Amino acid sequence: MTVPIGTALGSASVRCEVIAVGSELLLGQVVDTNSSWIGEQLALAGIDSHYQVKVGDNHERIRAAIELALSRSDAVIMCGGLGPTQDDITRDVIADVMGVPLRRDEEIVDRIRAMFGARGRDMPANNLRQAEVPVGARVNPAMPGTAPGLICPVGDQVIYAVPGVPWEMMQMVSDGVLPDLQERAGITSIIKSRTLRTWGRSESGLAETLHDEIQRLDRDGGITIAFLASGWEGLKVRLTAKAESEPLVDELIELEEQRVRSIIGDEIVFGVDDETMEHAVLDLCRKSGRTLATAESLTGGLIGARLTAVPGASDVYRGSVVAYASEVKYQVLGVPEGPVVSEAAVRAMAAGACDVLGASCSVAVTGVAGPAPQEGVEPGTVWSATCVDGAIEASVVVMPFDRERIRQFTTINTLNALRLRLLG
Amino acid sequence: MTVPIGTALGSASVRCEVIAVGSELLLGQVVDTNSSWIGEQLALAGIDSHYQVKVGDNHERIRAAIELALSRSDAVIMCGGLGPTQDDITRDVIADVMGVPLRRDEEIVDRIRAMFGARGRDMPANNLRQAEVPVGARVNPAMPGTAPGLICPVGDQVIYAVPGVPWEMMQMVSDGVLPDLQERAGITSIIKSRTLRTWGRSESGLAETLHDEIQRLDRDGGITIAFLASGWEGLKVRLTAKAESEPLVDELIELEEQRVRSIIGDEIVFGVDDETMEHAVLDLCRKSGRTLATAESLTGGLIGARLTAVPGASDVYRGSVVAYASEVKYQVLGVPEGPVVSEAAVRAMAAGACDVLGASCSVAVTGVAGPAPQEGVEPGTVWSATCVDGAIEASVVVMPFDRERIRQFTTINTLNALRLRLLG
Repeated sequence: MTVPIGTALGSASVRCEVIAVGSELLLGQVVDTNSSWIGEQLALAGIDSHYQVKVGDNHERIRAAIELALSRSDAVIMCGGLGPTQDDITRDVIADVMGVPLRRDEEIVDRIRAMFGARGRDMPANNLRQAEVPVGARVNPAMPGTAPGLICPVGDQVIYAVPGVPWEMMQMVSDGVLPDLQERAGITSIIKSRTLRTWGRSESGLAETLHDEIQRLDRDGGITIAFLASGWEGLKVRLTAKAESEPLVDELIELEEQRVRSIIGDEIVFGVDDETMEHAVLDLCRKSGRTLATAESLTGGLIGARLTAVPGASDVYRGSVVAYASEVKYQVLGVPEGPVVSEAAVRAMAAGACDVLGASCSVAVTGVAGPAPQEGVEPGTVWSATCVDGAIEASVVVMPFDRERIRQFTTINTLNALRLRLLG
Repeated sequence: MTVPIGTALGSASVRCEVIAVGSELLLGQVVDTNSSWIGEQLALAGIDSHYQVKVGDNHERIRAAIELALSRSDAVIMCGGLGPTQDDITRDVIADVMGVPLRRDEEIVDRIRAMFGARGRDMPANNLRQAEVPVGARVNPAMPGTAPGLICPVGDQVIYAVPGVPWEMMQMVSDGVLPDLQERAGITSIIKSRTLRTWGRSESGLAETLHDEIQRLDRDGGITIAFLASGWEGLKVRLTAKAESEPLVDELIELEEQRVRSIIGDEIVFGVDDETMEHAVLDLCRKSGRTLATAESLTGGLIGARLTAVPGASDVYRGSVVAYASEVKYQVLGVPEGPVVSEAAVRAMAAGACDVLGASCSVAVTGVAGPAPQEGVEPGTVWSATCVDGAIEASVVVMPFDRERIRQFTTINTLNALRLRLLG
């Protein structure tokens, strides 16, 4: 990936460091994925980030980290330490750096109280700490949880504080921090990224197929291509384009998407950006007026859980029979007595799912997730079947993975088989 | 987990910072898991680590990061930037900080050449860079790949350099860095940690309940308590104890666990260390000779997926009916016609799961995951029921969360209800 660089209106671009706060990060009990995510967002937004630091829950050390960051950058994003407990001291340290006291923000008190009220609970007194704001600081407009984010000016520099809970952090950075930083930076050129999600080719195979195109782009500039293997999210091919205006960058990226699709084969691209394999399958069912059911053994409900993670799945997806015990396969799905990790069993499961749950298509899986063999079959052996309007196809794969990766690979691989049948 | 803490022979323990080098880390293309792993090893080895820093492939900024680390700690581990390419500059910067030139180590040249030879390849000229060593530095005795690790004295301080490739880094840290650090530290005392996983109280509520105990421990020393909210992994209460011998630290932590359990209520603790809610429920079923089934609507299979993530679940867990469509609830589970987000529906689902899947106990959930209301019921409204030997109990909660958190909260909350019933 090229590093998309912001072009400031002034002579220098804005620099922003990231400080992740929490002793659990230093001790390796929690991996700091927040800084990585923020680093990527800063790069995409055209903000330089030269240092990212982890520091424990200690007033003097957090203070030193902030002062150092402000001595060499324009802005710092503090991540974590905004919770209600006594070791959450980010607000206190920021007030200290700003040289101001904390004030209690009654509007935040009301919002936190309302959140607890909605769950039928009283707000514990500790949560009042979360409503404390350094005098002179603004509250981040986004507040998905009980921790308010802070925007704290220090002269013409700024300290942002966001919670360490990832979903709260992401919303606050996207909606509150990045717009403020871009305004400070006076970003002029536009950078956009588009990710094509693929399934069915290896990373090195894709890289080989795209080798000439990548060399051409390296020569011409303006667009870069990067690969990212993301497990059951697919193998991602990310296009990043940079231009002077939004229409230009849109046109660049649109043309490049078409080129890449024609080089790698359109059918291996199952989604764009956030579209998962489940989106793709549900959409194809919806468009063809079909309903979908699943019959799961080794995945134990994982395929249904992924499908129903998609809002609106209910107009297509009927449900699942999770037949973990062999008797459930025999009695509920009509699998003939005999080995349950077999082509006969998985075909009967796919048919049974359509019958029992009243659907026009289905996927079914049965196999050995491990760690031990089952019925003499080695872990990693998985039979899967798809049923479309009564016609069943089955196949078997053997995977050298651990239990959870076998279950995840089975999920995307089986759904992809149904996708290809619905496409063609 | 045992964490031996270092007590230096002198007056203070040894402090070691970690600097992860690589622009890809700042850009979020690669998550820095190396520092987390090193942080845990340092803690286990009794070495304090107060700061961990990510910096890009830039000479001046790497140099500044090293000098800062040495200004406040005794040692620094540099991770990454030892490869053969031009942007691998860690050795050059270290030589600069030490004020010495690089020398070519012919023994390393021979080892690298032999590694290539073993694969039937000639050593590329670039790899000669990897044999350059600052004058006065030692080579790490472990060398699993082509990059040698360095042990570089700076006065009575030390800079360690290890590669960014995780398996090479791990071996060098374990075999070369930690023994050297421990020798410098003169380790005497032992630390252990134990995590109690709880469900049913808020973080701030627990902190309030444990306030006096935490103050007492602060006064007396030797043990600390920390909280970590981990979503559907539970709210974790971590006890960390330190003493002069292993029997002493075991006794300390055992006694403190009993105190904390008696203060917060033993029944809210569902597991210790890595034990999930699913482990707890499966174990209670197993011990009481019961089998388990699930009937899931809004969770779409998530409860079954979590249960079957536990190896050995098959001796207890029968399966699930994922009744996403209302007709599946009516026709497969015997839910009476009418509103499906209701007490009547969830009770019938729990009974139906036991009947259809042949189990002696079950959990069932039906609700609105959102984003839109359903049957006039607001998102976040969830009915759940548990069935134990035919006796059904049901309850409703309303959650102010997003779709995925509603599904996850429902999963742990419902399994916890069954756990409490099985406990008696």
